[in-house]
Order: sequence, then structure tokens, then C-alpha cells
Amino acid sequence: MSKLNNQKLSIFSLGGVGEIGKNMYVLEFGHDIIVIDAGLKFPEEDMLGIDIVIPDITYLDENKDRVRGIIITHGHEDHIGGLPYVMKHIQAPIYATKLTMGLIEHKLKEVNLLHHTKRHIIHSGSELKLGKFNVSFFRVNHSIPDCVGVCVDTPEGIVVHTGDFKFDYTPVNGEIADLAKMASIGERGVVALLSDSTNSERPGYTRSEKEVGRAIAEQFYKAEGRIIVATFASNIHRIQNVFDAALEHGRKVAIIGRSMANVVQTAIDLNYLVAHEGLIVSPEQINQLPAEEIVILSTGSQGEPMSALTRMARSTHRQLDIIPGDTVIFAATPIPGNEKLVSRTIDQLFKLGATVIYGQEGVHVSGHGSQEELKLMLNLMKPKFFIPIHGEYRMLRQHGKLAEETGVDSQNIFLIENGDVVEFQHGEARLGAKLPAGNVLIDGLGVGDVGNIVLRDRKLLSQDGILIVVVTLSKKNGTIVSGPDIISRGFVYVRESEELMDDSVQLVSQTLQRCMSDNQIEWSMLKTSIRDSLSRFLYDQTRRRPMILPIIMEA
Amino acid sequence: MSKLNNQKLSIFSLGGVGEIGKNMYVLEFGHDIIVIDAGLKFPEEDMLGIDIVIPDITYLDENKDRVRGIIITHGHEDHIGGLPYVMKHIQAPIYATKLTMGLIEHKLKEVNLLHHTKRHIIHSGSELKLGKFNVSFFRVNHSIPDCVGVCVDTPEGIVVHTGDFKFDYTPVNGEIADLAKMASIGERGVVALLSDSTNSERPGYTRSEKEVGRAIAEQFYKAEGRIIVATFASNIHRIQNVFDAALEHGRKVAIIGRSMANVVQTAIDLNYLVAHEGLIVSPEQINQLPAEEIVILSTGSQGEPMSALTRMARSTHRQLDIIPGDTVIFAATPIPGNEKLVSRTIDQLFKLGATVIYGQEGVHVSGHGSQEELKLMLNLMKPKFFIPIHGEYRMLRQHGKLAEETGVDSQNIFLIENGDVVEFQHGEARLGAKLPAGNVLIDGLGVGDVGNIVLRDRKLLSQDGILIVVVTLSKKNGTIVSGPDIISRGFVYVRESEELMDDSVQLVSQTLQRCMSDNQIEWSMLKTSIRDSLSRFLYDQTRRRPMILPIIMEA
Repeated sequence: MSKLNNQKLSIFSLGGVGEIGKNMYVLEFGHDIIVIDAGLKFPEEDMLGIDIVIPDITYLDENKDRVRGIIITHGHEDHIGGLPYVMKHIQAPIYATKLTMGLIEHKLKEVNLLHHTKRHIIHSGSELKLGKFNVSFFRVNHSIPDCVGVCVDTPEGIVVHTGDFKFDYTPVNGEIADLAKMASIGERGVVALLSDSTNSERPGYTRSEKEVGRAIAEQFYKAEGRIIVATFASNIHRIQNVFDAALEHGRKVAIIGRSMANVVQTAIDLNYLVAHEGLIVSPEQINQLPAEEIVILSTGSQGEPMSALTRMARSTHRQLDIIPGDTVIFAATPIPGNEKLVSRTIDQLFKLGATVIYGQEGVHVSGHGSQEELKLMLNLMKPKFFIPIHGEYRMLRQHGKLAEETGVDSQNIFLIENGDVVEFQHGEARLGAKLPAGNVLIDGLGVGDVGNIVLRDRKLLSQDGILIVVVTLSKKNGTIVSGPDIISRGFVYVRESEELMDDSVQLVSQTLQRCMSDNQIEWSMLKTSIRDSLSRFLYDQTRRRPMILPIIMEA
Repeated sequence: MSKLNNQKLSIFSLGGVGEIGKNMYVLEFGHDIIVIDAGLKFPEEDMLGIDIVIPDITYLDENKDRVRGIIITHGHEDHIGGLPYVMKHIQAPIYATKLTMGLIEHKLKEVNLLHHTKRHIIHSGSELKLGKFNVSFFRVNHSIPDCVGVCVDTPEGIVVHTGDFKFDYTPVNGEIADLAKMASIGERGVVALLSDSTNSERPGYTRSEKEVGRAIAEQFYKAEGRIIVATFASNIHRIQNVFDAALEHGRKVAIIGRSMANVVQTAIDLNYLVAHEGLIVSPEQINQLPAEEIVILSTGSQGEPMSALTRMARSTHRQLDIIPGDTVIFAATPIPGNEKLVSRTIDQLFKLGATVIYGQEGVHVSGHGSQEELKLMLNLMKPKFFIPIHGEYRMLRQHGKLAEETGVDSQNIFLIENGDVVEFQHGEARLGAKLPAGNVLIDGLGVGDVGNIVLRDRKLLSQDGILIVVVTLSKKNGTIVSGPDIISRGFVYVRESEELMDDSVQLVSQTLQRCMSDNQIEWSMLKTSIRDSLSRFLYDQTRRRPMILPIIMEA
């Protein structure tokens, strides 16, 4: 069992490779461990067939008796999506704000873990004692309500984890970030600040969500037919903006898409979203109301192939068709990697005669603070040590530069990777051990069983397909009793490649005969000979390299 | 044989689906056909294993005796890359400017078509008579030198095809666009303008390449160690900017990457690029010169996995390592779809200690005109009919709006797809027939043989792999003489899934026994039974759906 030095404060991320420090952060002192966030990420392009990726929690699993609590900063997937897996191993209680907990409970229910999990609702004024750690919170703004930053009093001083944040001075729900509380934490002295680096490359300030409200309202003035708004299901403030605009313009709101319906229901139940009585109508009523009296709120802002909006754009939605006169508002920007899907959807909507509002029309702002906000956080917290988190390496680096500008000693800035442990003792910090922190790939029910070999095969199969050679040999004398037969998938269009297939069969027959004239031959060598000669022949004929799988049966 | 109405002028694109009118445009009148450009495009994400995509030239092939010439506007791949395929079918002469022809010849040589192809070098003052068409040219600016727009005098009036263009009033080589000539074409009266829509969504003007020169020179002032510049091989002006900056700062230039070396050599040979004597050194000399006296010009600005820069970033380049103090300049922006590759490369370079210049530092400008330039072109040409080309549908639509603003009648704007024919007769235009204009996929030596079935199989294989069930049955009595054996690839990690595999074999055995108790059973039904029962079982156990391939041998 691995265990870190228990005389020190250790801080590390278990967020897997790629974006750094995003999905799970851990603080450890002596016998006590606390975890901040337990999120997932979506697979990279080369992780073929993988559904989601979660942090490697080997270290936590080995030390699970010492985990005093799991603190969740907010309810986005990349902060809560790993809980259905983590809670199978770790029995520690979860601490989260009301809305965040509502979303977590929905997840845990799906995997039948809800009743086995201890849950405590906190608010920005809560104070917890988790072993040697005293934990308090401060409210931050983001693209989902009820977000907190975490302040941890440790024997080595105060550590602050900002969570995802921006400063919105005119938030839709009026709840601005706890500036005074942050300032007082800073006054008490912060030994280490862990701060969100997502937008560290963007100069200036991120605009207020209230401006998005005005931009959406403006589109409502212009629209003459139906209005369809696509946004992230969890962006409750933006949905409130849509509700407000609908009420103002005498339109009803229909919600389509399962995740959108779920989140809206949770948010209304928990009073995070105010829907005037009669404002929401069922999707069935869409076609019964006049076009100018309806707003459709939908998922699909990322061009997700199965989402309601994408199906409408392709004219494959069961109930809803796009009609000329519709106005479709993309109240979101494409997440990197989704640009082409979104662009295809926009094109299809235009072709169906819709007016599409996308890009630079002010109907979206980021949920993350830009450079001036990051500097404000640094100025409030005045940390001795700084660990930029949440972002690619270059973003952490840029955030590090901002920290230097605000007066943090460049020696005291740690640009680290997941698994790197920073140790604090006697007011000093240094890079310690490296813990396992790879990606754990989830494919269907399999957790971590798909590794490099399976992925390499999927990649090969995806490029040039597979060719299977089957032959049955006699047990007695090794003569061919059946075959060779060749079957291919994903290699060539077989109906138009008969000659190639016939030639391949002949080549395999010749290879078999040549090999079998040597009585000592082993099957593995036979297979290698078939694979080599066929591979050369096929590359020569087609310049393709299908996977070749010789199967020898004995009868 | 299909043939269009020969009393009319017909205009259409054969550029495949996706971006519209990009790769090949055709004009036809009576017995005469001329082709403008013959490019390729790169495969979409869902075209697994495909190398490149070319236009469907079925129509040209059927009418090849009537093709009077192939006119190439400039030397980019999406305008010349289809020629090695097209020239196998069409014997018409190619017309292109000197640099463009140099690049074309390089391509034709590779496929042994150079000496079979008639080639004519033109310049912006050339005039051609190709059947009923009188063709002249006008110089435009773009991100490669020697670009022309095409002016075609037809019996139905003047048709103008802009090619890719922008207006650069301070071009690196001093050759500004032929404003006066364009104006005089406009004065004579243009019946139809086909104009580049790539940047129709960008307000304002595209900046001059000369500004990029200044931005690059600025980085040369700051850099203390080696400088590595990554850009598109074909951006000769930018390479000239790098040469000029190197000369000014007493640095030598080493060129790495095959395509970069090829294009630079062609451009120097043809006098499009001026390299001071002794400026260029061989890659071997890089490590012999002091760091502050070297510039490395490299491919890899798109994060291409096999490029020199990407290999240096991964520390897998044979000769070159990134060392702290290196400055790497990305003098290019990521093409949509390449964002993640580029971002990964930037991160790796930072980690190796390099200073990386990317994004908003002014070291790149687009080669395509923005909205004000598109309006300038419209004002110069004053067309009666307008066909926006080169772009996604929404860009064509935006370009159409710009045309309306400049006074083109909205009835006279054709937003068309590839294969849509616009017919001109007696001063009127209308949408005519639809010609085949799909994508032709090239995979290795195969041209068009990979279709939907093969791609669907590759997609399936890439997601959950394949499971092959082999069994040999006796010819005499149908009993099992060998197997069933199960082999899988890309499905699960077999060494850790023995139980699952054993259970699967048992399930197949049971299915076989159940089926064979019915003596009448056909093999196809046997296969279906195996596939169904195994598929259900595996989905239940793993939530994965591998391709299942039952193979029954007879011995």
C-alpha cells in the first residue's frame, strides 16, 4: 500500500492526462485525506469506442479509510460525472450545495448508489471539520448556479481551490461572488492558491450573463415565427433568460431533450429556476400553438448526433420539423472538437429555411474568468505559492505569468501534471512523489479493461478493415480438409473485388502447400507465413494494410 | 451518355458534397466544355481510412471529347490535387501560371503522367480561345503567388470566376491585384460572377501579408536561441518574409520536411522566392551553427502527426531536439478539425522549454478576402447574376446577402449545391438539371471502391471491435468436428476476459446443438442464430456491440 509522508501537507490532482487538474483534486495531511470534485472527461479522438474517461483512483482506493469527505464545487459533468464510479470504492460522505447535490442524486440513483451514499448539503456559509482540515466556502459565479470555491485550513496554512469561476457583477440571480469573504481569507494569509486557468489566454473580462439575456431578448423582438433556443442543459441562468424573454413576449416554452427536461425539472423543484405559471407547455402542444407564441428549448447546441436539434436539422425528428420562419438560436459556442458537427447542423438549418443565430451575436458568454478576473482572484488571495489548475499546459503557463505579474515569486509557481504531488512543510513547498494518475477508460460496463492493445486494434480495424483466413487441416496427416476461405470486412467492396479475393485464396493455398512440404512446421509459423505473404500481396495490389487474421482449425 | 442542352450556357460545380464549388467548376456551351480547377479535399472524420477525396468526374468522362481545356487558378492542393486522377481520364490541355504549373508538374511526374499531358503556361495577360469560349485572366492576391481569376467570354455574356482571392495593397512581391482590369471587365458587363465565400462571415478587411512580415521580424528581434518557423509549404510570401528576416539578423535557414523542401526548391528555381547566396544551409548544419545564427523552416503547422515539427515536439525526430531557448513560431492558424492536434503540439513544445508564438501574435493572416473585399469585388464586377462559391452553405448565404447589399437583385442570386446546373439563355438564368457530383473516395490505390458498406463496417469495427466464431461441421452428418473457436480483436482485453470468452464458446455450442437437432436447418439460419444469441449475451455482459462474424467450415 502506497502512502505519502504524513508529516507534510500533500496536494495533487488525479485528473488523468490531458487537461490538468480538472476532474479531481486531493489534499492529504497525516491520516486525513479530502477530495475536491470527482468528474469525468469525454474521450479524445484516438480513444475509439470509449464512452467516458474517469480519473485513476488507485491511490484513494488503497487509502480509502482515510478519506474524510468528497467536496464538490459545482454540478457540471467534469466535476460530478465520476461519482457513480468513485462511490463504488470510497464510502466517504459527499458535501455539495443544494443544486449540485440535486444533480448528483440523479446520477447516483441511476446506478443504485443513492441510499448507500452519505450526503451533506452545504452552502457558502458552511464550515466543516474533516480530520485535520477545517473547510469553508465562498460563492463564485459560473455557468451553472450554486458554485463554490473551497478554503481549507490545514496545519500548514490555508489552501484555496477556486473551482470553476468568473466574476459576474450583474448575475441573473443577483448572487454575486463573495468578494469580502475572499478578501478576508486573503488577509488571513493563503499558503497555496489553486485557480481555474481555462481562460487564462483571454485578455480582459468575461462579459456578464445579463448581457446574454439582453441579446436573447433582442432576438425575440426580431423573430416572427417559432423560436428554438439550444443551450447547455445545466446553464440555468441562461434558461432563466429564455423564460423571462418568453414571458415578456407572450410565448410559451416547450422543453425537448431528456437531459434538458431533467435539469429544468430539478432546478424548478429546488427553486433555482422560476417559471411563471402556465409558461411551460408539453412538447405535444408545440404544433397546436401559433408559431409566434412558442419557444422550444432544446439540447443539441454542440451538434450532438442524437440530440433533438440535430435530428430536427436532419429532418429525422419524430415530432418536430424545422419550417421556414423558424429562428434557431445557438446560445453556446462549440467545445473544441465539436466545431464541424455544429457547423453542419447550422448549414442544415439554414437550408431548411430557418434563421440561425450563432457566433458573434452575443447570445453566449464563457463561464470562466478572463485574465483580469484571474488577476483579481490573485490579488484577493495574495498566495505565497500558486498552482494553476484546469487547463492545457500552455494555459497553466499563461496563468503562471499572470501570477508573477501580481507579485507571486516565480520560484513559488508550480506548473505540474496530474499525479505530481506538491508537499508543504515549515512554510516551504517542493515537488514530491509522482502518483498513478492515468486515464481510466469506460466502455460500456467495462471500467479500465480497454487499454492500449484493444485501442490499437480498433485503430487498425478502422483504417483498412480486417481479412480473415480460415482453413481446416486434418489431424492425421495435416492435409487441407476445408478451405482456405477468406472473409473480409471494411477492407474492399467484396462484390467488386472478386478477382482480388480469388487471387488471395490461391496465394494462401500456395503458401500452405509450400509450408506443409516441410513436415516439421508449427502452426504459429504457418500463420506467420500466411500473414506475411498475404500482407505483401494486398499492399502491393491496394496500398492498404488490413488486419490479417489466419485461423487454423484441426479436424 | 448524358448531355446538357446545347443551346444554353451551363455552369456547375463537381466539387463533391461538403464545401461547395471548391474543387472543380465547369462551363459548357454547345459542344464546348471548359473546366476550372481540379482539386482534392481531405476526408471528413467519418470517412475512416480514406486518404483523400476527389470530385466525381463521371459527367466529364462521358463527354471528354468536348473538354477544351482545364484552367487552374492557383497551386493549392484543393485546386490541383485532383489532377493525377482527372488526367487519367481527360486528355484536355492544362492552362496554368508558371508557379502553379511547376507544382502541377511535380504531381504529374509522381504518377508518370507528365509526358502524356499537354501543358500551357499562361500569365495574367494571356488570352485563350477554347471552342466558343474566349478566356482571359486577372491577377488576384492569395496565400500563394501567381494566382489568377478567370474571365470567360461566352455567347451568353461574360462569366467571371474569382478563384481564391483577397486584395493585398502591399503584397510581399509587389504584385497587387489587377484592379483596373477587373474594373474594365465590370464595365463591359458581367452576366455571372462566381466568387470566393471562404471569409464571407468576417467583417472588415483581411490584413496584408506585409504585416505578417513585420510581426515575424519582431519575433526575430526577441529570440535569443534558435528560431523554428512552421508554416504552409506553399505560402511562398511568408517564406520570403522568413528569408528576409533571417538575412537581416545574420541567421542561416535550414529547411526540413519533404514538402517544404520541394516547394521551396520549385519556387527558387522559378524565381518566386529570392534566397541570398549562402542563406540556405543543409539540415545537417543545424547542429554545427550557434543557436543564434539558425532558423529552421518546417512543416507541421497543423500538428500533422508525421511532420518534422510534431516529431520534434514528441522528441521522436531522428536528428533534431527541441532545447530550452528555442523559439517556435506557428505562422499559420489551425484548419478546422486540426485544433486539437495543434494544441497538443504547442503544449509539448512548451514543456520542452521552448517559447511558442501562436494565436493572436499577428504571425498569420488569411489568404481570403473579408466582407469589405468581397463587396469591392462585387462593386468592380457589377454582375447581373451572382453565384457564391467556395464555402459551407451558411457562408454562401452570407455572401449572397453582401451581394444584395451591393445591388444584385435577390432573385438573381443562386445558392446552389455541387451538381446543380445553372443555365443561361437570352439574358435569363434558371436552375436546370442536377448532375452526379458526389465524393469519390481514394483509399490507397482504390478510386471510389470504398463506399458506404465498407465505411459502415470500419465504423462498427472502430467502436467495439470484432468477434469471430469458427466451427467445422462434418459433411456427412453435420456433427461438430472442430471448434467452436472464438477469436476477438478490439473488443475486450482477452487475457483478462477468459471467463467471458469461455461462456461465449459454451453459448455457441448450445446454440449449435439446439439448431442441429432440427435436421432441416440451413447454414444461413445457423449463422443468424449464433449471431443473435451471442450478440444479446455480450451486450448484456459488457454493454458493447462488437461485430460478430460466424464462419462455418465443412470437412
